[in-house]
Amino acid sequence: MAEYHRRNLITFVHPPHIQSYAAVGGSKEGEGPLGRQFDIISDDSRFGTDSWEKGEIQMQLQTIKLALKKADKCPEDMDLLLSGDLINQCIASAYCARDLGIPFAGMYNACASMAEGMVFSAILTGSGLMNQVVCAASSHFCTAERQYRYPLEYGGQRSPSAQWTATACGALTVGQTGGSVKINRAFFGKVTDFGVSDLTNMGAAMAPAAADTLSRYLKQSDTKVMDYDAIITGDLGEIGSNLFLKLLEKDGISLHNRHGDCGMMLYDESQDAHAGGSGCGCCASVLCSHLLPKLESGEWNNILFLATGALMSPLSVQQGESIPCISHLLHLSAGGE
Amino acid sequence: MAEYHRRNLITFVHPPHIQSYAAVGGSKEGEGPLGRQFDIISDDSRFGTDSWEKGEIQMQLQTIKLALKKADKCPEDMDLLLSGDLINQCIASAYCARDLGIPFAGMYNACASMAEGMVFSAILTGSGLMNQVVCAASSHFCTAERQYRYPLEYGGQRSPSAQWTATACGALTVGQTGGSVKINRAFFGKVTDFGVSDLTNMGAAMAPAAADTLSRYLKQSDTKVMDYDAIITGDLGEIGSNLFLKLLEKDGISLHNRHGDCGMMLYDESQDAHAGGSGCGCCASVLCSHLLPKLESGEWNNILFLATGALMSPLSVQQGESIPCISHLLHLSAGGE
Repeated sequence: MAEYHRRNLITFVHPPHIQSYAAVGGSKEGEGPLGRQFDIISDDSRFGTDSWEKGEIQMQLQTIKLALKKADKCPEDMDLLLSGDLINQCIASAYCARDLGIPFAGMYNACASMAEGMVFSAILTGSGLMNQVVCAASSHFCTAERQYRYPLEYGGQRSPSAQWTATACGALTVGQTGGSVKINRAFFGKVTDFGVSDLTNMGAAMAPAAADTLSRYLKQSDTKVMDYDAIITGDLGEIGSNLFLKLLEKDGISLHNRHGDCGMMLYDESQDAHAGGSGCGCCASVLCSHLLPKLESGEWNNILFLATGALMSPLSVQQGESIPCISHLLHLSAGGE
Repeated sequence: MAEYHRRNLITFVHPPHIQSYAAVGGSKEGEGPLGRQFDIISDDSRFGTDSWEKGEIQMQLQTIKLALKKADKCPEDMDLLLSGDLINQCIASAYCARDLGIPFAGMYNACASMAEGMVFSAILTGSGLMNQVVCAASSHFCTAERQYRYPLEYGGQRSPSAQWTATACGALTVGQTGGSVKINRAFFGKVTDFGVSDLTNMGAAMAPAAADTLSRYLKQSDTKVMDYDAIITGDLGEIGSNLFLKLLEKDGISLHNRHGDCGMMLYDESQDAHAGGSGCGCCASVLCSHLLPKLESGEWNNILFLATGALMSPLSVQQGESIPCISHLLHLSAGGE
């Protein structure tokens, strides 16, 4: 964390605006503390289809369509769709893009994909090269569980340090004007790897990436923790969050109770989610149900949003590799138009 | 193909420059018509490691390091690495990014990932938001075969319409100045799907995406086929290329022998590659070994480069879905500095 890259902090002269946003979730997310803030909660984990994967495609479609509707836009108004998910070959995003007919760029940075898409969305519109884009990320407990871990029918025991992949999607539109939240700065993270190889403790693996990104961002932007009302990480969960705070303390940075973690906000202790929520859809949906409204209402003026992603695969870990992680950061502020 | 999106054509006022490039391949690629134009050919399919996946990571590392070296740069000089591959969770790119330490954005648009990365590279540098970035894509016959099709040990028969996933990587650096090839325009494709669900005939599935992108690009840019010395598709192969030309004819567009396909350039008929090469690394390596030198030498002045990607997964096809495809386009021209 001692090395500071000079030029990858992007500060927008004309900050792009988040014009509208939407969040859709499953029944477990509906029962959580943020349930009532979601736009749609579906009790059907297949979202009206005959498979979980097709259900995730439908969930992403619903969310994006709703975000467009809230901005009073249709797919033809959008210059680009930037989206990602966790299913192999990112099929939730690809099939959703097919159905929408918007030019498409697939994002993959695991659970940091929403932030990756938002950084590019801000670049495209903030530079004036595009007028309006839409950005989304989704995950689904059932598609992730059988792909990364065990068939659900097997009923495997979950480790106490494990996180729960959210069945959720967040989508937002970004443009040069409109809306009451701005993206002031964007910052791409580096891949960090502290040698953690325990797939049931991803929060611990991701914490160093978030700490590295925040530490380098504060230095490069010449800002302080106290300049922000909240510093929100993606899905470190309880164990990862504690480690994140400790790593920052070593760097002389104290978050003064300004830290929140989307993975710890989505479920409460009674929901058996162990260390907290995870998955691309976790921070995407928390952002679009809970964080952006706080900026819109004026409760917050400035926040940092750091999604975190674990970039391994089951195969890479089987081959003895540890878990490389990344965290991209956005500085969001209230006040648009 | 009748619908024309208005605003997603990006024309650079200050076209960014491709400063350096490199291509690395395996032994089969070395034996092909372009073999001598590759920078490095490795006879070891594991590239000195103990697995094909780790081998692909090494191949990508070698290629990127060589592209940086040719530009007389080191990883610290780069503001961002944009890269993609075909292994689940894009692990070749993620582990390579970890070893390089450059801020990282993972691209996933299947075999169109190189073009996707190049479009974003051009946007980042052409807008002045970043100084220098590096972009890469890789694929590996052995990692793809066992992931998408059969274990290699099984020795499955290949269909005559099947393509051969290239063991290859291409990488290039893009900046605001330097180098003798410019990126003048960039154009994101839409996902198209003509209902093809035959995984052994991906060229046929991808052809409509390339035709759609080219057709819309020519309309939006108000240019003609004759304005370009060559129009090069990614990896349609023989069957897909024929279909591509026929679809364009229906739209009243004739390519006048200006069409070339990277999948048909990489291997010759004696190499048993059936319909041609494929994989992210196919068009990335042909671009960086064969196409860019022709622009640099002045043999060509203007070309269009359209990578094509098939966005399905084995699972989506098992669930009865057809193959959605995409093609991103770049207009490259000679003359830099």
